[in-house]
Amino acid sequence: MLSYAENEADEHTASPEVLKVSARSRPSAVAGAIAGVVRELGRAEIQAIGAGATNQAVKAVAIARDYLRETGIEVVCLPEFIDITIDNEDRTAMLLVVEPR
Amino acid sequence: MLSYAENEADEHTASPEVLKVSARSRPSAVAGAIAGVVRELGRAEIQAIGAGATNQAVKAVAIARDYLRETGIEVVCLPEFIDITIDNEDRTAMLLVVEPR
Repeated sequence: MLSYAENEADEHTASPEVLKVSARSRPSAVAGAIAGVVRELGRAEIQAIGAGATNQAVKAVAIARDYLRETGIEVVCLPEFIDITIDNEDRTAMLLVVEPR
Repeated sequence: MLSYAENEADEHTASPEVLKVSARSRPSAVAGAIAGVVRELGRAEIQAIGAGATNQAVKAVAIARDYLRETGIEVVCLPEFIDITIDNEDRTAMLLVVEPR
């Protein structure tokens, strides 16, 4: 069974690199997805809404940095706020852009 | 044996740039501190324990990136896990290193 992040990534073929992370996402699984997307596309974007999700996303980036460093890729994280609409409700999410330094 | 004041001074000198963020920290205030430390010392380190604190820390970094970009400094964030001891208890904290790209 796919993790939440992997499942979401598959559903959003328009922007395949956006990984949606929830408070229940497993950081190591998301980290694997981040590393794969960075290797495939050169960068990854992780979207998180709320403290629990943002925490899991940051943990995942920390782990992904280790994964990628093992293959000689040094990545950095660029956090920014984004406005999104879910069920006709405006929300502010965190977007963590991960790309080579 | 060092006096309390000397001991504190030593700790401060050892890593003057570590900003400790809690779940109750105001992101914009922390962002101002991050921007100031980066301008002064070239880099800043933000320590957070727990989801609420990490969330505030990431928000602060996003805001600090805007502050610093206004003065021509493009910073990136390097999240990593660190092991710390508080009240004789081992904890895992997130350390967000912020430095120019």
